[in-house]
Amino acid sequence: MKKQMLMVPGPTPVPPEVLQAMGKQMINHRGAAFGELFSEVNHLIKKVFQTENHVLIFPGAGTGAMEAAVVNLTEPGERVLLATIGAFGDRFGDILEGHGVIVERVEAEWGMAIDPQAVKEKLENNREIKKLFITHNETSTGVTNDLKAVKDAIPDDVLMIVDAVSGLGGIDLKMDEWGIDVVVTGSQKALMIPPGLAFIALNDRAWKVVEENKAPKYYWDFKLARKFLEKNPPETPYTPAVSLLYALQASLRLIIEEGLENVFARHELMAKAIRAGVKALGLKMLAEDDVASHTVTAVYSPEGIDVGKLRKLMREKYGITLAGGQKKLEGKIFRIGHLGYVDWPDVVTVLAGLELALKELGYPVEFGTAIKAAQEILFAGR
Amino acid sequence: MKKQMLMVPGPTPVPPEVLQAMGKQMINHRGAAFGELFSEVNHLIKKVFQTENHVLIFPGAGTGAMEAAVVNLTEPGERVLLATIGAFGDRFGDILEGHGVIVERVEAEWGMAIDPQAVKEKLENNREIKKLFITHNETSTGVTNDLKAVKDAIPDDVLMIVDAVSGLGGIDLKMDEWGIDVVVTGSQKALMIPPGLAFIALNDRAWKVVEENKAPKYYWDFKLARKFLEKNPPETPYTPAVSLLYALQASLRLIIEEGLENVFARHELMAKAIRAGVKALGLKMLAEDDVASHTVTAVYSPEGIDVGKLRKLMREKYGITLAGGQKKLEGKIFRIGHLGYVDWPDVVTVLAGLELALKELGYPVEFGTAIKAAQEILFAGR
Repeated sequence: MKKQMLMVPGPTPVPPEVLQAMGKQMINHRGAAFGELFSEVNHLIKKVFQTENHVLIFPGAGTGAMEAAVVNLTEPGERVLLATIGAFGDRFGDILEGHGVIVERVEAEWGMAIDPQAVKEKLENNREIKKLFITHNETSTGVTNDLKAVKDAIPDDVLMIVDAVSGLGGIDLKMDEWGIDVVVTGSQKALMIPPGLAFIALNDRAWKVVEENKAPKYYWDFKLARKFLEKNPPETPYTPAVSLLYALQASLRLIIEEGLENVFARHELMAKAIRAGVKALGLKMLAEDDVASHTVTAVYSPEGIDVGKLRKLMREKYGITLAGGQKKLEGKIFRIGHLGYVDWPDVVTVLAGLELALKELGYPVEFGTAIKAAQEILFAGR
Repeated sequence: MKKQMLMVPGPTPVPPEVLQAMGKQMINHRGAAFGELFSEVNHLIKKVFQTENHVLIFPGAGTGAMEAAVVNLTEPGERVLLATIGAFGDRFGDILEGHGVIVERVEAEWGMAIDPQAVKEKLENNREIKKLFITHNETSTGVTNDLKAVKDAIPDDVLMIVDAVSGLGGIDLKMDEWGIDVVVTGSQKALMIPPGLAFIALNDRAWKVVEENKAPKYYWDFKLARKFLEKNPPETPYTPAVSLLYALQASLRLIIEEGLENVFARHELMAKAIRAGVKALGLKMLAEDDVASHTVTAVYSPEGIDVGKLRKLMREKYGITLAGGQKKLEGKIFRIGHLGYVDWPDVVTVLAGLELALKELGYPVEFGTAIKAAQEILFAGR
């Protein structure tokens, strides 16, 4: 027996109610029972997207949702702006370029957020660019972009297309209120269900672009998906991932019951407690406090401590799985995922495990230091 | 309380062991536990595909697997041959044309199989065509194509790309032995797991085409998927649908334990018993015996019996969900799915329900007629 704790930024732990929901037997996806399930899910997911727009749901990974946005909103040869601050921003660029789109870039050093003024200037100096692709929360660095500030800064006629895979449902993103045009996400992060669903919401002006789009597509055809979604009861063009929709129904009920604002506050509190704890041990954070993500925290391994050994010890002796660094941060940082089904006992446990493992690897630790710092935050924040 | 029986050609009923497997907690998709799961699944799925080639697995629907085959194997402007005998053959054509491929067609009347000689002649008269897209088992009509005969008839240098969504795992398809180049399928049919996984296997000469292919793609990039599959332990380029892979592991163990030949024999026996029962009631079949599918049976509604009313009565009073007709067969036929987790009690029940419902709608029925005919087949076949 060894208790296992998965603290990577996706897949995230799934609540028991949600796991159980997947045990339900199959139903006909053209029948009334599916209509009821899909109607409820469509209704509740809009609340999490903070939108009145349709949210399209496809069987697929988050990367599929990103590609779906690209093939429905861009044409080969078109010039767009990509604001990237890490590996997943770069992936958006790879997908765009893979489809023949010409990608201009605004970047930030890994660990920093995008500068809204830099985006504004780039767009003002390139008025033929009408689409901005940007990451909400960069999973590879644990940094959240200030989407509202970016949106407020850029010209009105530029469509803002957001990869919110590791943010949506954990960090506030007011799609309608802020005027974000397109939001894509996946299922296995703050939505607390297993991987396998891809989500995309578009506002009216994004739909106008979709309606005129000529890029080849079939599986990701938004117009076809909308046509089936607007049936009564709603359907999908081809077989939906029924079990994952049962899971989604269960998880959305949990999220709505807790209250979206409370969910965001919980994520913020857990993130702050973890940061306080890690800092109390003298470890260096990749991101500054003001841009630090509420869903994933990136930490430099202490001088002389091999990050691979640290993660291995955490995993094998203490049952806690942490993520490593990606691309240029590989071997330099570890990342703690704290999104979705995560509460204060998880924070205390991961910090206690970190203290134990660091001490074993020869790093000077006074047991309880990180936990005490986290408790101060938790006590004040509750 | 009303017992529910889902007898549509997908999603199909999922065995309890498989539903339970989906209740497992998430794991890190870059860790050792996932490597073990994915290794076993990759090993076992090859047996079901009857191939030594890699079988790629993506989060997605069967339609996604079809589009994946198109964007990895064809180029816009290329001319290919489509052999279509129903709605899903036509869908392959829609996907191809959606990607700018020029589609030549060989068709058969709905309810008939493709004529291998017609395919051969078309290809011999159009030697610039190097790819044949064809359906294994046409779900909309309940007809199985003789893929071996087609393969033996066509020129050697033509790549044969097969949609086996409603056939694979239920009807024999010897990919390697017959020399089929590409086979695609989905999870929610004879594989007995919920919808949400897309599968593609390719032989060496198909991989050569993939390697030279320039069509834009990212999510469905076979080369990228193979690169990750060949890691040790195997991985996927982006987050896999972990729960569905647990389900797949459980279902593949069941299939291998039963023995693939026994699984095929069971499907054949159930199909024959259902056909015998339905015929004994005097109902007309869409397909002749020699091309009739072992996984789905299409039946004309008797003269004067509204097929919608029949399906509704079956569903609401007897708890048995049957499928209707698609496209040009809508309102004319009903379809009984009998693939995957289906055994003789299901056959007896669906026939008994059919007798009850038909009698209630005024069709002359001597109770037990269909069941007796089915029992004769079951008794002889065991």
